[in-house]
Amino acid sequence: MKKFFETTNLEKVFEYRSVFPPVATDLVPLSEITGRVLAVDIVADGNLPDFARATMDGYAVQAASTYGASEGSPAYLVVKGTVAMGESPRFSICPGEAAKISTGGMLPSGTDSVVMIEHTETIDDSTIEVYRSVAPGQHQIEKGEDFKKGETILSTGQRLRPQETGLLAAFGIERVKVFQRPVIGIISTGDEVIPIDESPKAGQIRDINTYTLSSFVKEAGGVPVVFDIVGDDFDSLLDKCTQALVHTDMALISGGSSVGSRDFTIEVFSSLPDATILFHGIPISPGKPTILADVRHKPFWGLPGHVVSAMIVFTVIVRPFIDRISGLSPQRLSKFRLPATLTRNISSAQGRIDYIRVRLNERNGILWAEPILGKSGLINTMVKADGLIEIGIHTEGLNEGAAVEIIPI
Amino acid sequence: MKKFFETTNLEKVFEYRSVFPPVATDLVPLSEITGRVLAVDIVADGNLPDFARATMDGYAVQAASTYGASEGSPAYLVVKGTVAMGESPRFSICPGEAAKISTGGMLPSGTDSVVMIEHTETIDDSTIEVYRSVAPGQHQIEKGEDFKKGETILSTGQRLRPQETGLLAAFGIERVKVFQRPVIGIISTGDEVIPIDESPKAGQIRDINTYTLSSFVKEAGGVPVVFDIVGDDFDSLLDKCTQALVHTDMALISGGSSVGSRDFTIEVFSSLPDATILFHGIPISPGKPTILADVRHKPFWGLPGHVVSAMIVFTVIVRPFIDRISGLSPQRLSKFRLPATLTRNISSAQGRIDYIRVRLNERNGILWAEPILGKSGLINTMVKADGLIEIGIHTEGLNEGAAVEIIPI
Repeated sequence: MKKFFETTNLEKVFEYRSVFPPVATDLVPLSEITGRVLAVDIVADGNLPDFARATMDGYAVQAASTYGASEGSPAYLVVKGTVAMGESPRFSICPGEAAKISTGGMLPSGTDSVVMIEHTETIDDSTIEVYRSVAPGQHQIEKGEDFKKGETILSTGQRLRPQETGLLAAFGIERVKVFQRPVIGIISTGDEVIPIDESPKAGQIRDINTYTLSSFVKEAGGVPVVFDIVGDDFDSLLDKCTQALVHTDMALISGGSSVGSRDFTIEVFSSLPDATILFHGIPISPGKPTILADVRHKPFWGLPGHVVSAMIVFTVIVRPFIDRISGLSPQRLSKFRLPATLTRNISSAQGRIDYIRVRLNERNGILWAEPILGKSGLINTMVKADGLIEIGIHTEGLNEGAAVEIIPI
Repeated sequence: MKKFFETTNLEKVFEYRSVFPPVATDLVPLSEITGRVLAVDIVADGNLPDFARATMDGYAVQAASTYGASEGSPAYLVVKGTVAMGESPRFSICPGEAAKISTGGMLPSGTDSVVMIEHTETIDDSTIEVYRSVAPGQHQIEKGEDFKKGETILSTGQRLRPQETGLLAAFGIERVKVFQRPVIGIISTGDEVIPIDESPKAGQIRDINTYTLSSFVKEAGGVPVVFDIVGDDFDSLLDKCTQALVHTDMALISGGSSVGSRDFTIEVFSSLPDATILFHGIPISPGKPTILADVRHKPFWGLPGHVVSAMIVFTVIVRPFIDRISGLSPQRLSKFRLPATLTRNISSAQGRIDYIRVRLNERNGILWAEPILGKSGLINTMVKADGLIEIGIHTEGLNEGAAVEIIPI
């Protein structure tokens, strides 16, 4: 029997992120960048907008021409023309004059505001009454009011949402330098594990981890590369890991990470070129038998074979490493967690962090987290769950009514 | 000047979801279903697992053989054999006997539990000492403990996460009946709007809405189909909408939804075959000039042209309709909202719902929502924001320190 491993505390575990460099970058068409991580700072090459624009349908005026205007005492303005959309007006406006304008139109020179059409009345072809005064700047966007030329509008390491995509469109940036999606190899191990298109004989079980881990990798913005299932055999696993080292940026090997007679992962990792075992064993439950190796500066993970353990280790431990090699800035890594209230007492062992699956229910305006107990080999516990809660390493348990924070799954 | 519209309350707005049927279904390979919406109930065609499995490395035993065992007074058991992984053991175990077994191995008949290897010592080839007693069921998963044959394991209308994908793998379901991704047409309008690969002349502005709305559609699980930009011209817009009716499940037309002289959207919708205008105008800010038409039971939307208004209307109004036609069950539609505390007083007009963009900051364990004020034509307000808060229709404003709920953007 091998010795049981010493665990590495999570602070130290997450420090190891800095060992692994971000992946390379690509130029990607704007229509495909949402969700990707920006790999360059973007500086405005002009003002946005580049001219003052109306934000209402109405009349462009000098605000002073409307001062004091009211229903009882309207201002009378001379309509000098109509602003054609998408064109620069060929006239300018003097005090006492107005130009008809639609939303998005360019304000003529001499104007500083727009009177809403609802606050005017047409008297004849060239005269309007204005019933309400406007302030300078009202119902218009000034030149450069959104972004000014030379301003840094987006920064390296931020994940691009729809609004950032729109902003890049505004500046005509058709191709954007973003980090590549990290390619992540997935290897399920175990003599008892069979592909899902086979019928299990007694003692066999279909491969679940390949599908759950591939799906999580996609959600994390990575590209899963699935290798064939490997039996409990050192040479076969070494062969697959050698392939993974060539073709991927990170590898996830599930099963074989513990210290039993058929647990080859750590020996295989040690046999890879330029490999350092960073840790074997972390103080979390489920998920204690987790291995991280630095193999030519690529993270190689040994994950537990139990389906729930593998998913939880992915969510709380592996995912931050994927964020790291994806190029995400550290200050953008953290996610806000949903607060909830525990429905029942729950015990925990000191000296480890317990991750408890919970179902969420809203009752009387309170969000309740209901623990779902069950063995870490039972996938039904993850299917019923909406999230995880963490019970700290120095805590013996939590009482009914305790405030908890939800890690969504 | 046209008459200003009457707004339709949001309760009524969301009731209109039931007008629109879900899209058709497809059989999709298991590796591509995560994030899709299940279109069938899945019933277990067998037990999961189909045999009792060890969850630890050790010895399969009858629990009773270990009762009373301790360090000082171990139980001595005869090792009858080793369970080969992925095979049915060819022997059975009697009281006083044990079978060596690895995690995931099939328990031999006659056993009901597993003693962890850490709690045993090998005496000779055929004898072990056991230092701790186990209870029946310990360190094993029983046949059918995860799911039982005949049980409904997943239901129509649920979005498939990684864990549901893994569950379908466990049952060998290689292709899954899911709802198609709704195809959503996107049409930007306005004489002043130009494609992003052109340089704007004075008075022109690049098309932002196509990019923001396409990105939001993808995030919502839809497939955006982008049409060329349409000028302020009835016939051109009618032509594009006619194409959208043939090729898409929903259409989003941005710009031209208000009541000005160049706002053709409502007239175009009215000219489409079998079209009913469901509403024109909703009591929200920004986003009041929003149109929904039922065109041959496809939702056709007129969205405001202002970039921020279009994004907010998409997020709070359009998205639930996409969920509806995507086949999501009503009980699965709601999302839990993150609670936060407002950093400053904010005023609001009664009679409308205000959506305020906010930035989130965590200080002293409290999540603060800081309002980002700015015109609805300024995209920078959405780029700076982490979420929206809603100020209700009967509320004149919120005070600093008020509890708010965050709609993520």
